Amino acid sequence: MILCDIGNTTVDIYENAICRKVALLEFYPELLIGDVWYACVNSSVQEKISFLGNWQDIGLLIDREKYYPTMGIDRILVCEAIEEGVIVDAGSAITVDVMKKGIYEGGFITLGLKSAQEAYAKLSHALDVSFNFEVDLAKMAKNTPDAVTTGFVAPLVEKIVRLGNPIYICGGDSAQLSHFLPNSIIDRELVFKGMIKLINRDRKC
Amino acid sequence: MILCDIGNTTVDIYENAICRKVALLEFYPELLIGDVWYACVNSSVQEKISFLGNWQDIGLLIDREKYYPTMGIDRILVCEAIEEGVIVDAGSAITVDVMKKGIYEGGFITLGLKSAQEAYAKLSHALDVSFNFEVDLAKMAKNTPDAVTTGFVAPLVEKIVRLGNPIYICGGDSAQLSHFLPNSIIDRELVFKGMIKLINRDRKC
Repeated sequence: MILCDIGNTTVDIYENAICRKVALLEFYPELLIGDVWYACVNSSVQEKISFLGNWQDIGLLIDREKYYPTMGIDRILVCEAIEEGVIVDAGSAITVDVMKKGIYEGGFITLGLKSAQEAYAKLSHALDVSFNFEVDLAKMAKNTPDAVTTGFVAPLVEKIVRLGNPIYICGGDSAQLSHFLPNSIIDRELVFKGMIKLINRDRKC
Repeated sequence: MILCDIGNTTVDIYENAICRKVALLEFYPELLIGDVWYACVNSSVQEKISFLGNWQDIGLLIDREKYYPTMGIDRILVCEAIEEGVIVDAGSAITVDVMKKGIYEGGFITLGLKSAQEAYAKLSHALDVSFNFEVDLAKMAKNTPDAVTTGFVAPLVEKIVRLGNPIYICGGDSAQLSHFLPNSIIDRELVFKGMIKLINRDRKC
């Protein structure tokens, strides 16, 4: 069985417990042999896939009533992977969601680290600085890179910590963000773990 | 005496306890008669002013060693206005600074409300939503506008509250932000109050 998470620029393919990333332009779904379960946010790829008999939409296994109507599929899948805890998906946006005893409690969306830095740069040349991931968030900043880093990261990190434990982090910026959340668990395969749980639950039914 | 705060697109002019805003393109410094104290972040206007004998740079009265070298003049001026408290300047960027017994304790810079909303919109069409200023930040969000608003605003507001009291808010978005900080004091003239304190201190010397 192959699992595919299809985004707008890349595709993550999970097979035999190994995950590989492929550029969307170099992705040919018809070449994948055997059962494939997928999540897709790209409508043109979705259409292409609909003609392939071996591809099944993981979205059909989700109980949508547990979540809110416009919630993204990837966000739902990482929640499905976790029974209890805070799930931080640090990608182009950062989503933070809370699960309690398998029930979705709600969450929020903030800007991704790259997106925030780009927005600072757009505001003024003086704020066009890289985040300092070595900064001590507990201290008040006294230079521009630290003031910008703590301005965006400290409120977010402190909010995440207050939401409870355990904290799981996935997404492209998980290593950078986890640096500020030393007790968090990095798990880049949460989307696929969510998919596998849904498939196994469906098979039992 | 006239006080001027010259930004990159507008000028705030304070005279006889009344503040008015003028577009930079419609601002003719040579027309202001009498003593003028100014803060300026625009180098071409700064050059123009340097030829006017009645204009004095407020920056010369600041003890720069109290602050950090690259700290913006407006940010210093709002701090100079306050002996004790948290000062939030909610403009194109949001600066948050702490003063204790007249000593600068440090601060941070985050994105302004407009800038953050623009950055969300750039990330995806689904996140191109207006902030919901009626949202209850204490509740976990279960729809996109609330998830986006709480994602940006809740961590920031909670961080500001933890910094202490009193909280002063100035800047163009002070009304919107103060909605989430019910015990804060809106004071749109903090920059000018800082200028006046500096001028009075200088006169006593």
